[in-house]
Amino acid sequence: MYQLTVLYHQPDDPAAFDDYYDRTHVPLARALPGLQRFTVSRPQPGPDGAAPQYHLVATLEFADQAAFGSAMGGAEGQAAVADVPNFATGGATMLTGPSQTP
Amino acid sequence: MYQLTVLYHQPDDPAAFDDYYDRTHVPLARALPGLQRFTVSRPQPGPDGAAPQYHLVATLEFADQAAFGSAMGGAEGQAAVADVPNFATGGATMLTGPSQTP
Repeated sequence: MYQLTVLYHQPDDPAAFDDYYDRTHVPLARALPGLQRFTVSRPQPGPDGAAPQYHLVATLEFADQAAFGSAMGGAEGQAAVADVPNFATGGATMLTGPSQTP
Repeated sequence: MYQLTVLYHQPDDPAAFDDYYDRTHVPLARALPGLQRFTVSRPQPGPDGAAPQYHLVATLEFADQAAFGSAMGGAEGQAAVADVPNFATGGATMLTGPSQTP
């Protein structure tokens, strides 16, 4: 498998982020050709009540690097990437690499 | 679902990290009761050749928060957490929260 992990930093307005993400960005991500698994996790505050380092973790899995590259290089991938600045006011860190069940 | 995401920062010795992780830490993680899915992704350098912000992303999924809490509070969870400083020389960021397929 080949995995794209997107780590969204804390946004200026978490509620506005969540609304936009769910309504607008998720459909763009789901439209990626070859997307085999897509999970979204929203980290909770730590035991001390401190905000987590990231607001949202998105994990997108593709069959292999070629499938990932094809998806991101196509119109759907370009649209999804271009949408990120519309809501990720805190920025986003993207990590890409092979993945496996160890 | 309930997800634990572990982001390992770049270690001092990546090869030693990988060897220890695969041989020693993975078996400890796999022993967690109630672990439903476990994936390990190793991010690749960016287009500019720069090292990725994190060396390894581990994603562990449990049925719900109660199952996660039970696993981490038990002997297996304590052993897995106690092992992290043995190899994560760059430190690790742990994120926990509910997850879903959106």
